[in-house]
Amino acid sequence: MEYTAGGVTAAKGFMAASAAAGIKYENRQDMALVYSQAPAVTAGTFTTNVVKAAPVRWDMELVKTEETARALVFNSGIANAGTGQEGVKINEAMAGAVAEALEVDMRQVLTASTGVIGMQIPLDKFAAGAKALAPALSDTLEAGTRAAKAIMTTDTVSKECAVTFTIGGKTVTLGGMSKGSGMIHPNMATMLALVTTDAAITKEMAQKALSADVKTTFNMISVDRDTSTNDTLILMANGLSEAPVIDREGPEFDTFCRALHMVTETLAKKMAADGEGATKLLTAKVVHAAAKEDAAVLAKSVITSNLVKTAVYGSDANWGRILCALGYSGVSFDPDRVDVTIESSAGSLMLAKNGMATDFSEELATEILSQKEVIVVADMKAGDQEATAWGCDLTYDYVKINGDYRS
Amino acid sequence: MEYTAGGVTAAKGFMAASAAAGIKYENRQDMALVYSQAPAVTAGTFTTNVVKAAPVRWDMELVKTEETARALVFNSGIANAGTGQEGVKINEAMAGAVAEALEVDMRQVLTASTGVIGMQIPLDKFAAGAKALAPALSDTLEAGTRAAKAIMTTDTVSKECAVTFTIGGKTVTLGGMSKGSGMIHPNMATMLALVTTDAAITKEMAQKALSADVKTTFNMISVDRDTSTNDTLILMANGLSEAPVIDREGPEFDTFCRALHMVTETLAKKMAADGEGATKLLTAKVVHAAAKEDAAVLAKSVITSNLVKTAVYGSDANWGRILCALGYSGVSFDPDRVDVTIESSAGSLMLAKNGMATDFSEELATEILSQKEVIVVADMKAGDQEATAWGCDLTYDYVKINGDYRS
Repeated sequence: MEYTAGGVTAAKGFMAASAAAGIKYENRQDMALVYSQAPAVTAGTFTTNVVKAAPVRWDMELVKTEETARALVFNSGIANAGTGQEGVKINEAMAGAVAEALEVDMRQVLTASTGVIGMQIPLDKFAAGAKALAPALSDTLEAGTRAAKAIMTTDTVSKECAVTFTIGGKTVTLGGMSKGSGMIHPNMATMLALVTTDAAITKEMAQKALSADVKTTFNMISVDRDTSTNDTLILMANGLSEAPVIDREGPEFDTFCRALHMVTETLAKKMAADGEGATKLLTAKVVHAAAKEDAAVLAKSVITSNLVKTAVYGSDANWGRILCALGYSGVSFDPDRVDVTIESSAGSLMLAKNGMATDFSEELATEILSQKEVIVVADMKAGDQEATAWGCDLTYDYVKINGDYRS
Repeated sequence: MEYTAGGVTAAKGFMAASAAAGIKYENRQDMALVYSQAPAVTAGTFTTNVVKAAPVRWDMELVKTEETARALVFNSGIANAGTGQEGVKINEAMAGAVAEALEVDMRQVLTASTGVIGMQIPLDKFAAGAKALAPALSDTLEAGTRAAKAIMTTDTVSKECAVTFTIGGKTVTLGGMSKGSGMIHPNMATMLALVTTDAAITKEMAQKALSADVKTTFNMISVDRDTSTNDTLILMANGLSEAPVIDREGPEFDTFCRALHMVTETLAKKMAADGEGATKLLTAKVVHAAAKEDAAVLAKSVITSNLVKTAVYGSDANWGRILCALGYSGVSFDPDRVDVTIESSAGSLMLAKNGMATDFSEELATEILSQKEVIVVADMKAGDQEATAWGCDLTYDYVKINGDYRS
């Protein structure tokens, strides 16, 4: 199993196209279409926010009732959340417009929107975009990369990733793309991610793999603790690799899950590193926790603490804030046993041992924290479970970006 | 019942003093002592953080086992949290030093520390400070005000408040002080607050009043969702008003609770308004919720959202973020019924009706949001319960203050 170039068009039979439709901004790529040449088995996970965007409600219904899908259309600029029944109708019309352009049933077309909440998507612009997208579909890696760029909002880099592996002697590819980068605190899914594969897998096993995977990938990242209204992760598997169908647990399913994990973890980390205004990727590893769930809650508490995030931004080895964030996570533990260590390409340094400061070098601590990727390790000494969560620092630019997002 | 001047020395028999002891910084007031001329019935609420500072553990034990207390000594600069058994011993020695200076039993001396986590308090400096404080005690209002200033860390203004009222024909006074202004997300109490009164009340009724009160005051504020290791709220009642003892529920207890609420709500709002880097007080009022607890959770979700807080900073009427924050609070509701209104001294404006944007004036919205105190009202149309929470905007200065707090 190894990484390969590309994203959503890396697997056989997947095509993509992007366009500047002027949904909210002029002269900016803001629509993307991903199409499978064969019906693709589809699984999905979605936001747990009570306020669900119209496309989320549409996709949840389709993923539940339809065995396959042929296409997923994205738009950035407007989220189609907080738009009532009118938003629902516009979303259906959007699926309809794409279905017409692709000559498929509209219930084979998933939708995903991202951007401002509370505005209606101008249907005429979207429909014109859809008409332009269909004939532009291409199976090149570049087409996938352009699609990954078109779904960006405040993202500074596009996120894509792909791996190849073998099932039953056949080479299988699985690739994906995703976008952040604010309102990121996924709960059962993330803000717009699509994974495509030419593996053959049943719907049941695809959903099983996806639902298990998000627990350790997308659900373990946070930019600002704000769980979006639009979080959507879709997996499409079209079987064109001609590998045998995965229809039960076993070595093939495990291989598939590992490939999925390689792609989703990479995408999740890229989203965290590119959080709004972020200058650093902050990784929290909790080891020797009493229970798996404890470890996950503790790790997430560290990466979501505004005080930890600002200290990391300032390269300040304020480990007390890390201990404090562990302490209010809701998990019970003995603070007098906890060790806190920081790591990066500049080295490793234990800041606290058994809940108390070590006599650490402030100079080395600052150097470690000044790198682009910083890891905080909390050793709870309470058991053998561990978990990793990814976030980013909190910076002036986060405030700047979000002080006037709509204009 | 009306507001009166002063804070912790407003009630009869309470004296205060402050000093610059050089605990962490030179030439800065960093110790305060509040002393009651008669033994004072004492109630308290404390942080629920698993990591509890040494003074918190000391006070919890004393409030539980001792009927009364005579003094509460504060220091700012070092929090005495993350300091292990050595910190516990230092804290005891601190209580002992104050007890010796005041010639009282050390179990009559409560302690409260705030500042950096993970450093030990230099006992010699503290003891010298304690020795200077005792003879400087004064019952003037100014002495109380100076004490409120001495406990400040990143606070920009000191917080005090007092009210007078009548019980059994006697004039009773109740006053308090508190400090913020980062790591503020109280859970059962707040970061260092003291309320003093010359009312006569039993310990049981005092604790009952305090525990009920924090639910709608200190527990409803947040600056950064970081629940501190040091949150402490103490109520001391010395009975010197000669009013009849409150020893049961009834009109006198209700009067006492109203007075307590006037002081604690005022202090809580002052803390929120003076949150680190804040330029605005953000109040979220949730009305017509199905349950009281729902209303509180919803209101707190709005004031803790980084995205809502940055939008308020930028005076951006991005109501979708408010709806989104309500949506991920964990409370179930129908988003298509929610109205969102903003209010301030510049007027009132409904931004969303039944979950969808109204055709509001952006100009007026910006003017309303540009004021120092902004209120967001979310009408859930699901019942008759309501709650209010207080927070502040998220600004460049919050990042600046916390990027390098320790230096």
